[in-house]
Amino acid sequence: MKFNIALLAGDGIGPEVIEQAVKVSDAVALKFGHEITWKPALTGAAAIDAVGEPYPDETHDICVASDAVLFGAIGHPRFDNDPSAKVRPEQGLLKMRKKLGLFANVRPTFTFPSLLDKSPLKKERIEGTDLVFLRELTGGIYFGEKGRRDGGETAFDNCVYTRAEVQRLAKKGFELAMTRSKKLCCVDKANVMETSRLWRETVQAMEKDYPEVEVSYEFVDAVAMRLVQWPNSYDVLITENLFGDILTDEASVISGSMGLMPSASMGAEIALFEPIHGSYPQATGLNIANPMATVLSAAMMFETAFNLPEEGKAIRDAVNKALAEGIVTEDLADGGKAYGTKEVGDWLAANI
Amino acid sequence: MKFNIALLAGDGIGPEVIEQAVKVSDAVALKFGHEITWKPALTGAAAIDAVGEPYPDETHDICVASDAVLFGAIGHPRFDNDPSAKVRPEQGLLKMRKKLGLFANVRPTFTFPSLLDKSPLKKERIEGTDLVFLRELTGGIYFGEKGRRDGGETAFDNCVYTRAEVQRLAKKGFELAMTRSKKLCCVDKANVMETSRLWRETVQAMEKDYPEVEVSYEFVDAVAMRLVQWPNSYDVLITENLFGDILTDEASVISGSMGLMPSASMGAEIALFEPIHGSYPQATGLNIANPMATVLSAAMMFETAFNLPEEGKAIRDAVNKALAEGIVTEDLADGGKAYGTKEVGDWLAANI
Ligand SMILES: CC(C)[C@H](C(=O)O)[C@@H](O)C(=O)O
Ligand SMILES: CC(C)[C@H](C(=O)O)[C@@H](O)C(=O)O
Repeated sequence: MKFNIALLAGDGIGPEVIEQAVKVSDAVALKFGHEITWKPALTGAAAIDAVGEPYPDETHDICVASDAVLFGAIGHPRFDNDPSAKVRPEQGLLKMRKKLGLFANVRPTFTFPSLLDKSPLKKERIEGTDLVFLRELTGGIYFGEKGRRDGGETAFDNCVYTRAEVQRLAKKGFELAMTRSKKLCCVDKANVMETSRLWRETVQAMEKDYPEVEVSYEFVDAVAMRLVQWPNSYDVLITENLFGDILTDEASVISGSMGLMPSASMGAEIALFEPIHGSYPQATGLNIANPMATVLSAAMMFETAFNLPEEGKAIRDAVNKALAEGIVTEDLADGGKAYGTKEVGDWLAANI
Repeated sequence: MKFNIALLAGDGIGPEVIEQAVKVSDAVALKFGHEITWKPALTGAAAIDAVGEPYPDETHDICVASDAVLFGAIGHPRFDNDPSAKVRPEQGLLKMRKKLGLFANVRPTFTFPSLLDKSPLKKERIEGTDLVFLRELTGGIYFGEKGRRDGGETAFDNCVYTRAEVQRLAKKGFELAMTRSKKLCCVDKANVMETSRLWRETVQAMEKDYPEVEVSYEFVDAVAMRLVQWPNSYDVLITENLFGDILTDEASVISGSMGLMPSASMGAEIALFEPIHGSYPQATGLNIANPMATVLSAAMMFETAFNLPEEGKAIRDAVNKALAEGIVTEDLADGGKAYGTKEVGDWLAANI
């Protein structure tokens, strides 16, 4: 098969880890007889510097014309202490999500047996953890009307959801649950928020279409607790944008494998794949960043965007083998030999 | 001294744990020569049953006329699966907070050395954890305009903050930081929300009045991560209502001592003290609930509402002694002898 893949390396360690994912994807393409054309495009601080805009129209056009988007990371410290600056990398991220219609952010949290000791949680608490968050990504308080009144003395942010927005996200949740253990948890704050009540009633009404799925409803504060106490009690969780932002980050640290967690953002037309870690500016250019989360994001791309599970598995097998043989960057080296970003990428490509 | 204390036992295990706190407070009063008049009043499901209202006017009048409020817990399973029921216990809670002007919820998380093993986190991660959240409690999305449009197909919740609301909460945060290690963390989502930008700019402007306090600004998603990774890196944290709801619950489980965590809600006039645990309906009437969080809430009451640190310390010492000698309820018994709620209360009162 032939694929065009938009390549958005972004800021910080983005370009370095993306380079390894490209290498590994090319090795997969060679092995399975596919042809990938990479379409690099600017985003984030890099795009602001080049064209004054974190998500330029040319980048959008390239994404729309591609079969998938592979994304590194964006964010640069020079913007961090000035959240109200006119142009910020994050705005590019939000604009990209909205314009590409990426309404469902899929974030798995699972454990690698060899990394259990890296977790801040006790081993017996996280063993067997394998959960997936579906976070709504183009609605809620992120995109509602916001501003000031009373000469700047009063600020407001509006959280808005329509039934249709909830339905399309929940549908993906039910479908995902059907391919897994048929357990779905709807996370909301229905005891306080009207949008949450809409979420809950919409999901409740959909239950009859998926009679095999066992649905539970939990408040966001309770989930924030239980994620730390019993992460392995969850399977598929669906939630709105802001709750998802907080809970998926919380979930990402429980497994001890944060540097390895991939994610996908899906819409009606196109899907984007990215590691969940950030741009890690301090490590930029040092050849120490762990490329595995980006490489595993490429695996998700083969599996879900191209429907090529064998190709995805080839990547996962290579990563597992690298972990078993200690071909890892310093974050996982644990006193043993630490390989460089490039060297891990080369090893993975050679082991496809 | 003479005190009138409004006594809001509430639902579930509320009455049982409140009874022990009364016993212990009375023992303190006897020892230090104070006179307490308890003013019982209805709240929660109990109040709905009695007068059709979860926070009746008579209860409010009793609170306003008292020197402090001691609160048990509210919530009843019969309302849980119907979050949109017309009258719910939670509404009483929100109404009480608003009408009493309890704008600052103070929630400490600390560790008891003897309970470190109860934590889902590894010992070395939580040792020395001693942090306090100040959660804004009468503003934000909890109290903004909310409703439906488009024949019910669209729902909205408005999050609103004024500079004055942020200032009075932040002032308490700075003052608290001055009595502790002079570190203050402002938790927001200033890269997305306008209300968060108001929070951030308001706190930034106050920094000059507290030159000794070192202030940091962190995004709520980052804090949700770091609370699990390095809880002992935090000291005083201030945040808005909804973020506070999520993060204080998350924080409450990290120490392994959730059954022991007290809290205070403060306003301009009156303060309310309550355990952070809920109404635990399954345990109602079984004499198994741990009364220590409520007893320690009474300690906070003596210390902060009445400015009587010795009296508070007498209670804390008794609790520490009980923990050391194994006079504990089944949640802490760990295979050893489990005492009843009443028996622990009696022992604590006798050891004042
Ligand atoms: C950078 C920020 C706007 C973004 C978000 O809040 O969505 C990030 O935290 C994320 O989760 O991708
Ligand atoms: C019961 C609910 C309305 C309440 C809240 O969200 O404030 C509770 O979770 C709390 O934290 O006291």
